[in-house]
Amino acid sequence: MNPVEFVRKKRDGQPHSPAELKAFIDAFVAGDVADYQASAWLMAAFIQGLSEPETLALTQAMLHSGRVLTLPSVQRARVDKHSTGGVGDKISLCLAPLVAACGVAVPMISGRGLGHTGGTLDKLEAIPGFRVNLDAKRFERIVRDVGACLIGQTAELAPADRRLYALRDVTATVECIPLIVASILSKKLAEGIDGLVLDVKCGSGAFMKDRKSARALATALVSVGKRAGKRVSALITDMSAPIGRTIGNALETREAIEVLQNGGPADTRALTLELGAEMLIVGKRCKQREQALGLLERALSDGSALALFRRMVEAQGGDARTVDDPARLPQSKAQLVLPAPKSGHVSGVDAYALGLLAIELGAGRTRADQRIDPSAGFELRATVGDAVERGAALLTIHAATRQKCQSVAARAAATFRITARRPRPRPLVLERLR
Amino acid sequence: MNPVEFVRKKRDGQPHSPAELKAFIDAFVAGDVADYQASAWLMAAFIQGLSEPETLALTQAMLHSGRVLTLPSVQRARVDKHSTGGVGDKISLCLAPLVAACGVAVPMISGRGLGHTGGTLDKLEAIPGFRVNLDAKRFERIVRDVGACLIGQTAELAPADRRLYALRDVTATVECIPLIVASILSKKLAEGIDGLVLDVKCGSGAFMKDRKSARALATALVSVGKRAGKRVSALITDMSAPIGRTIGNALETREAIEVLQNGGPADTRALTLELGAEMLIVGKRCKQREQALGLLERALSDGSALALFRRMVEAQGGDARTVDDPARLPQSKAQLVLPAPKSGHVSGVDAYALGLLAIELGAGRTRADQRIDPSAGFELRATVGDAVERGAALLTIHAATRQKCQSVAARAAATFRITARRPRPRPLVLERLR
Repeated sequence: MNPVEFVRKKRDGQPHSPAELKAFIDAFVAGDVADYQASAWLMAAFIQGLSEPETLALTQAMLHSGRVLTLPSVQRARVDKHSTGGVGDKISLCLAPLVAACGVAVPMISGRGLGHTGGTLDKLEAIPGFRVNLDAKRFERIVRDVGACLIGQTAELAPADRRLYALRDVTATVECIPLIVASILSKKLAEGIDGLVLDVKCGSGAFMKDRKSARALATALVSVGKRAGKRVSALITDMSAPIGRTIGNALETREAIEVLQNGGPADTRALTLELGAEMLIVGKRCKQREQALGLLERALSDGSALALFRRMVEAQGGDARTVDDPARLPQSKAQLVLPAPKSGHVSGVDAYALGLLAIELGAGRTRADQRIDPSAGFELRATVGDAVERGAALLTIHAATRQKCQSVAARAAATFRITARRPRPRPLVLERLR
Repeated sequence: MNPVEFVRKKRDGQPHSPAELKAFIDAFVAGDVADYQASAWLMAAFIQGLSEPETLALTQAMLHSGRVLTLPSVQRARVDKHSTGGVGDKISLCLAPLVAACGVAVPMISGRGLGHTGGTLDKLEAIPGFRVNLDAKRFERIVRDVGACLIGQTAELAPADRRLYALRDVTATVECIPLIVASILSKKLAEGIDGLVLDVKCGSGAFMKDRKSARALATALVSVGKRAGKRVSALITDMSAPIGRTIGNALETREAIEVLQNGGPADTRALTLELGAEMLIVGKRCKQREQALGLLERALSDGSALALFRRMVEAQGGDARTVDDPARLPQSKAQLVLPAPKSGHVSGVDAYALGLLAIELGAGRTRADQRIDPSAGFELRATVGDAVERGAALLTIHAATRQKCQSVAARAAATFRITARRPRPRPLVLERLR
């Protein structure tokens, strides 16, 4: 393995063999390729591209850079979901117990929020006592006994991805489809799953701003995932406005619980059902979308999904009373309600801008070592499509102090577009790739 | 200065402003841009390119990353020469004193050999006692009093180049014209020169293998050098065979002394005169090439160039007796003479291959911390254009042991191409750019 020759090859736009990519990843993890060499290669790969066979080989090299779980004791089909990240995206919290309640096991390893999108782990930790740092043995036992378990990345799974991602983040090599695909799939394939459903977000609040790039990412994810021997499908879903009515950790957890209580905002519920149906199909529990939706709706209405969430929270050390009494979740010390400046219809809410403002309130972080305020965030009192009267509540800002609420108030108000005409409804699921 | 945004800009093929490039170089030298960020940028610049205004701004930022000499006490025009590196290229050793003897001061800061080409400093150090590590004050005094001084790079001149070059070397970002131009010119402009003559080597033994890339480099060097306010010209010279008759440090120093003694191989002498004439013109000492050649030839025949070299060696602590008695230079312990395998004409000598074999003999290094053997190398007993009889001496190998000589003998013999027909003579100077 000669790192300089390896970098030179991609610099000149030539293809790597699977053996070369494996040797590179192994040498990188072993410390025989320096960070400055890896970042030169990342930039060359960003600009010159990686073919699908190269992306597959990179994925497998990164996957096998660490431990690969097999979950031998879990007899049922094992399916996970991965979202490319949106604002107000709390779907994993209600989706995992719901799908597990329908008979498909969900071993889910999630991330923390960084940038304008939140992270599932931060949302779960809003539940007092909830532990996301469990070892592989405990993880497997909970998946087997409860049906779903949501934990954080462990040091032993796909270590190459962790190190490469840290480099990409500081060298402007994040937004590269083959590198994104290898990063996502290497982590997900390490979970011991049979299938994977991808929620590729598309729109101003997502990393993929337009349909073309979202489709390119979804296509590559499905294709490389299948080449790796998994059942994979992807939904491209709208991310032009925040999902549901809440942004911020405890607020979003509460909304997810509302969905499990057979309530919650229509779009949050609908997205959960669409992704759930896809997971039941990928997990071979159902053949048709309609049959799957029927199963899922019953699990919401008969309380079995909520019961499974309660058992999961208990198994992971969380205070299960929050599941029935969400008021036990952390409450913000200060709130500020913004009124609608005029009457009309909400025709747009800038998800990206609200996501960034939520960080300022303490709901997210700009550096990995920052602490967050679980109670901070936004409650949308009206969202896209709603009619509002001048002076009626538009947005509630939650933060530790009234001053903090006020510091973002004007900019938060500016994220709402109110027009005389009602906007045309946008579909939630833009495309489905199998 | 946001390093990630800076890298992103070049990644996307956008131009940098001079202020941005200066901020990047300053932050890099201050340690606020990490090596992995700099190398990602180097790769982006390699692939996306840098415009001439960007190259100029990068050059000036690198130049001003350290001390810039002005040599206020040197009253005469100050002109330096830089070669892009060839095999057997000892021209600086005879050229600097020759040009100084004709009235143009030569403040020359040179490098060491790394790769298949030798370094001027290593050749000078073959002279017992010769010191190349002088401080700026001493350097200026010798340029003023003697007319020429040849030293090594000091830590205070263009530190950004030293650090960037070390990174380029290990990240496959060396062969990039804008980066090469900025590296060469930032170091040379720090010497306090009024003008610069570039010897851009072209051919199998050079970094620029073909005429097109040599011309592109020469054009960029002249153009950016002029934009930086200097008088600059470039010769593109042939590097398809070694220069002169020797490769190796003491051997080459001896050949350079022979030129100063009004002898030496025809091509070494001719190249010295061509570059010298260019330096006298750039230094405004002469207007015409013919007038300049006349001055230079007189300085060789009347002994004034040799006398100036003697004074320079003395001023730099070297044993001046070697100047009149080159037998005092280090002599190899073992020699092996290779005979011509057949009669005919030498129609080619693979300079690149001989350069690499010279490293094996101990004449060069593959790592910066390696020691070299000043006496090792090759003496070409016949070169391109010469007629040879079967069994007559073709090459003398010099090394520390007979075993070392023998270890490269077969491969060294294979670098000679002997044909029945005499090859067509190749011009020494392929192009002249002003």
